[in-house]
Order: sequence, then structure tokens, then C-alpha cells
Amino acid sequence: MILIENVRLIDNYKSEVDILIEKDRIIKIGKNLKDNNLKKDCTIIDGKNKIATPGLVNTHTHIPMTLFRGVADDIPLMEWLNNHIWKMEAKLTGEIVYWGTLLGCIEMIKSGTTTFNDMYFFIDDIIKATEESGLRATLSYGMIDLFDEEKREKELKESERVIKKIISLNNPKIKPSLGPHAPYTCSKELLTETKEMAKKYNVPIHIHMNETIDEVKKVKEMTDKLPFEYLHSIGFFDGTKCICAHCVHLSDEEINIIKNNNIGVSHNPISNLKLGSGIAPIPKLLKNNIVVSLGTDGCGSNNNLNLYEEIKLSSILHKGVSLNPTVVDSNTSFKMATENGAKLLGFKSGVIKEGYLADIVLIDLKKPYLIPNENIKSHLVYSFNGSVDTVIVGGEILLNEGNLTKLDEDKVYRMAEKCYRKLVDW
Amino acid sequence: MILIENVRLIDNYKSEVDILIEKDRIIKIGKNLKDNNLKKDCTIIDGKNKIATPGLVNTHTHIPMTLFRGVADDIPLMEWLNNHIWKMEAKLTGEIVYWGTLLGCIEMIKSGTTTFNDMYFFIDDIIKATEESGLRATLSYGMIDLFDEEKREKELKESERVIKKIISLNNPKIKPSLGPHAPYTCSKELLTETKEMAKKYNVPIHIHMNETIDEVKKVKEMTDKLPFEYLHSIGFFDGTKCICAHCVHLSDEEINIIKNNNIGVSHNPISNLKLGSGIAPIPKLLKNNIVVSLGTDGCGSNNNLNLYEEIKLSSILHKGVSLNPTVVDSNTSFKMATENGAKLLGFKSGVIKEGYLADIVLIDLKKPYLIPNENIKSHLVYSFNGSVDTVIVGGEILLNEGNLTKLDEDKVYRMAEKCYRKLVDW
Repeated sequence: MILIENVRLIDNYKSEVDILIEKDRIIKIGKNLKDNNLKKDCTIIDGKNKIATPGLVNTHTHIPMTLFRGVADDIPLMEWLNNHIWKMEAKLTGEIVYWGTLLGCIEMIKSGTTTFNDMYFFIDDIIKATEESGLRATLSYGMIDLFDEEKREKELKESERVIKKIISLNNPKIKPSLGPHAPYTCSKELLTETKEMAKKYNVPIHIHMNETIDEVKKVKEMTDKLPFEYLHSIGFFDGTKCICAHCVHLSDEEINIIKNNNIGVSHNPISNLKLGSGIAPIPKLLKNNIVVSLGTDGCGSNNNLNLYEEIKLSSILHKGVSLNPTVVDSNTSFKMATENGAKLLGFKSGVIKEGYLADIVLIDLKKPYLIPNENIKSHLVYSFNGSVDTVIVGGEILLNEGNLTKLDEDKVYRMAEKCYRKLVDW
Repeated sequence: MILIENVRLIDNYKSEVDILIEKDRIIKIGKNLKDNNLKKDCTIIDGKNKIATPGLVNTHTHIPMTLFRGVADDIPLMEWLNNHIWKMEAKLTGEIVYWGTLLGCIEMIKSGTTTFNDMYFFIDDIIKATEESGLRATLSYGMIDLFDEEKREKELKESERVIKKIISLNNPKIKPSLGPHAPYTCSKELLTETKEMAKKYNVPIHIHMNETIDEVKKVKEMTDKLPFEYLHSIGFFDGTKCICAHCVHLSDEEINIIKNNNIGVSHNPISNLKLGSGIAPIPKLLKNNIVVSLGTDGCGSNNNLNLYEEIKLSSILHKGVSLNPTVVDSNTSFKMATENGAKLLGFKSGVIKEGYLADIVLIDLKKPYLIPNENIKSHLVYSFNGSVDTVIVGGEILLNEGNLTKLDEDKVYRMAEKCYRKLVDW
């Protein structure tokens, strides 16, 4: 049991309340909850001068790529992939992925993210690190068959193994999903079998869609259809739930497909800008009532996992591009990073409410950029740098007044440096 | 005397050096400087596991607007000005401006900015607060005559008073400048007399230029010329040095005028996006060898003073807009925020070199978003959140391992809250 005393809530920051947590849920929000019969082992957290926010949900990551931070910037995409990312990825081992994941988990915890949606490989090591971190996650094995049948069978087999393994863990914080990389790297057969497997295990699909103009052209050449039209035509969206990362270059017809199917978007504005991919038509998607969430993408193209940067950028970028300061207001971008993300991943979190998962972040209000202590949501969207104080995930305290409770920070940093050396020294 | 021991330099981060500071200058950089004859009162700073960077230079601010943080977002520009900003500005007093400035100074110090270029009113109070903070600044009184002769005389008189006052302070950290607001709010006579005054006192001019499409149109209607063409035609740039904020909407002819005169640009990407003003053609300005620096603008339109956000955004935004990941690389954006800003404001700072001003910021490298500790400049541009450790300005320590040495943080926050209440409660 945890009692957070005298804390302010983001949507009602003018008065203080207590939040009572039992097991992994928020069971009561109100005044003077200490007076109730608390269990003896109840942990008391002083929430004075702090704001309680829902933990952020990062809906598109490749966590172990923290180790690729800064290795290649300011270069064309194909050079980035061919000369740097793929060369380094070829040298990855389970151990390297494990430490890279832990580094990413620390970064997320310390910037207020409590849930992430990942796609990568060496999944056993990612699972292990994620469980140790205490974070909530949806994990998928990233499948690429490059239209090769043998590779396809291997990829699908690995995905099914990972799904079964995660189910067998019986850890409510970790859920499996399926990760076909993208329509230009996966065969029609892989995509079709992915859909069937998604239905069989009732898991969501996490896929890259319409990130660059080139890949859209490639799919058009291959299939004579735009990517969403192509997937729609092969029944990919029938009976599945898809989280589509990027969605930068979309036709109106494709927007209609997104709208009329169980498809959510993960908007990754920083990665899309940094790689020179473009700017997603978010105001248009919102007008169509499409569920848009936020993602950082991997640290190779961001170069961090601080989702607060995405919140601010998603609010300001589309104002500047459309010359309209009213689009994507602070309520919208904050909701993208919390409620919408949770909804897409199927976790009952993203808001602080009785009965919801206790994924709660406390932020110290005595920071110059949060003063005056009014219009707090605006401050979190437009002024906050992500430095949070206390992080609770599923009723477990992961960060206590700035200190990690479960992970050995120094050791992770030291091991991450060592692993990085293995990737770059050859 | 200050000795920073065993610190890494941003452009040569693989080995450790010592930095020796005497009075307001860096006098020596090298190994084992402790062995030299240090003065007895030399302060030793442990630079182990830290990177030393030049302090950032914010070339466009309205510091007291920290108190307007979050009061009005996501609304059209004229509504923002008429219903919020101007109403609050009408209630400002010297005392309110003083505390708002101190709040801004704390924010800048804690995010690694050591110099700022401001334009506002109640300048005496801004000067007082800036001197108390220990920051370096160029300060101007913001002149607006709205084409009224009487107002013009008053504005120019106030500007001249401020210049004389700042000169008489004999504080090498504070320099005067002239701040005619913009060509659409200032008469031709005001602009002409400003130019003469700038030459008389040898001070730079700080002005808003081409921020929105509407104002460019307005100047075109008024003068039949585009803003830079207009100023050029009245000789505004003859013998003056101008720092022009925004420069979002520019014709090729105007870019030529900037290039061929002593004009520097203050790029304010966050403010320009948030207000829906647009995106400045920075890659084009850089191609023309125009000196581009970075500014946050006021907290009414940003909503913070963390110049590290501007550094990252200026590097990623133009890549995304031009679909070219090679433009505005990390060296360029970091230089904009340091060397270029210092150059435009005429301070010998912005680099860590013997003989230069000791405006130095130390950053703790043991942060998850700075690991692996390689490609440090990339990390500062693309991954850092601005939380710095130690700040030295002109040989004076303003922040020591996160603690302010000259300002009473709690008192400033308390007074800022009080002042804010005076602005919004009526």
C-alpha cells in the first residue's frame, strides 16, 4: 500500500488531495486518507509542492539503440543505415542488448515514462531488462524477411516463441505484440501470417508505416497501391489492432482507411524531422478522430527517450507548419502522450483515477520553469524538461525523489559504456 | 582565481585538462596547472566526469515575461496580444519586472545560458536584477511610437537615458543597446533617430523583423517595400550593427540586404512555431554566410528560457522541412548558440580559449541521456535537457554543483508567485 499525501493533480492543481494505492491500482483519491484504516506497511510519500501526473506512454521505441546515441547524425538515411546502424546492429549480442535496454529504462524512468511499446531483436534480453526495471511494456520481435521465404518462416517462428514466452511470464506489466517491420521490407505472406497470428493470440501489431516518401514510392511500385491501401487490400486490418509508427506521408484515402479500421498512430516528430523524413499531418488525423499517440523512436534518430520533448514539439510544430496557433493544444498533446498511448497498448492507465493502474509520476513544482505554479498542464507541455521526482509503476516505486530503487545506476552506465566499445571498436 | 581540474572540453572530450581563470578571463588551459604557483585564495573546482562548455548566448529575450508563462497558449496572435499580454503588461510595475527578471535569470543560469540580449521596459529594474544575478547581458529599452510624434520623443529620451545609465555603471557584464520594436510599430523618424543614436554611442540595435506574414504585408502597404528593403532605403543599416530577431518571411532581395550589411539574425524557432508565425529559412541564410544566432523570445511564447531546446530544434526542424538530414548539423547549431551569439553582442566569449572571457558551464556526464560518453557535442545538441551543474560568468561562480551562489532561490520563487497574482487578479 502506498499513500501519496497532499499532492496536486494535473487537471485540478489548485487543491491538494491524497492518492491511495493498493497492489497495482489507485483505489482512492480524496482528502485526509491517512485517517482511514491504513495497513501497517503502508508507504507514505509526501506530495507537498508536487504535481501528480499519469506516467507517459511511449508508443514507438527500439530501446537498445540507446547505445547508438550520437554515432551518426546529420547524414542521409541510407548512409545512416548502411554505414552505421546496420554495421553496429550486426555486432549486437544479447548481453549488449540487455545493458542498452537497462540504460533506456533508466532514461525513461527519470523522464516520467512508465510504459513503452518496443520492436527489436534479442527479445529475451529486452524482456529480462524490462522486468528488472519495473516498467510496463508491450514488446515485439521486429520481423524483416526481405521477401525471402526461408527468412519468413524463421521470423514468424521467433515471433510466436516470444509471444508464448511473454504470456508464460504471467507478468501483468509485460504484454506481447507482433512487429512486422514495414510493408516495404516484409512480404505479403509475412504480413498475412502476422495478421493470422495476431488474431490467434489476440495481440496488437506494431508496424512502421509511410515514414518516408521513398518507401511509399517503393510500395506503390511493388503493389500499385499506397501502403495503407495495400495492407487494406490484403485484409491486414480485418480483426486486428494496429499501432502504426510515423504515418508521415498519407493520402486522404489512406487517412480514411486508418479512420475506418482499428488503427492508432504513433507520432514521432523528432525522429521524422531529424532523419529528414517530413512532418506528419497530425491536425488532419485529429480532425478525423484518429487516435494519435506519441513515440520517440530509437536513440539513433532522436537522440533520447524523453517523451516530454515530443509533447512540446507535437504541440508547436503543427502550429508553425499550418500557420495556425490553435491546432494541437496542450490538452491534446498531453493526452496523446498518456491516455491515447495507454488506450492503444490496452493498459488501463494514462489517467489518475480510482480503479486505474497506479502508474503515477510526481514532479517537483519548485523549478524556475514551472513558476508561476499555475496553468500547470501548459507548463508540462511547453516548459518542462522532463526531470521528474518520483515514479510509481503498477504500485511499485521505481524512482524515489530522484533515486532509482530497483536498478544500479552506476553499474548500468559502466556496462553501457563497455558494450558501446564493443560496437564501435573493430 | 579559479582552477577547474580534470575537465573535458567539448571539442576535445577524450582527454582531461585544467582551466585556470584569473579575474574575468581564461588565462591558461593545460595539464596539471595546480603545480604552477597558484594564488592562495584560488578556488578549486573538481571537473572529473564533467564536460566544460562555453556558456550559451540567448540573443532574443523579454526576460520579465517569465511571469506570463502559461497564461495564454494555443490562441491566435492578436487574441494573445489584446486579451492577455497587453492587459498584463499594463499592470506591470518596476517591482514586478524586477522579480520576473530574477526568475528568468535563475532559469537561464540553471540551463547553461550565461549571456542574454533583452528588449523590454522598466529597464532600471531589469538592470538591477541582472547585476544581482551575475549574468552578462545587452539590454535595450523597447521603443514603440505607433507613428505618434510625442510618444517618439519620449521613447528616444528613455532609450538615451538607459544607454547613459548603463555606460555609467561601468559593469563590463552589462552593455546597452537600442531596441526599436519593429518597422510596423515604429515611425520612419524613430528608426532614423535610432540609427543616429546607435552611431553616436556605438551601440548595437536589437529589432524584430519579418516575424509574421501579416506584418510584412503591413510594411509593404505602408512603404511599398518589404521590411528590410524599407530599412535599407532609409539608411538604417549604414554604420550600424543590427541584431534582427525572427526573420521568418524573407525575400531573396532581403537576404541579400542582410548579407551585405552588418546584420545578424536571432533565430527563434520555438516562438515562431508556437505563435504560428512560420519557419525561418535558416539553411539559406547559412549558405549566404549570414551570422545566425539563437533566441528563446519571451516566456509568453515559448514558454521557457532553455536555449538547449532551441539548439536541438534548429538542427532538426530544417532537416524535416527541407527533407534533407544534412542541413544545420550539430556543430552549426551549437556554434549559433555560443560563438555566433557572442560575436553579435560583441563579447569575447562563446568559446573556451585562453584570453577569452571565463563564461564556462560544467555538465555532469553521468546522465543516462549523455551515455555513451562519446560524441559529446551531438549529445548536447540532440539529447541534453539543459540541466547543468556549475556556471561561471566572467570568473564569478553563479551555480555551484546545482546550487545558486548569489540569488535566494526560494525568495525569488515566492516573490514571483506574488507578482503573478498582481497581474492576473483584478
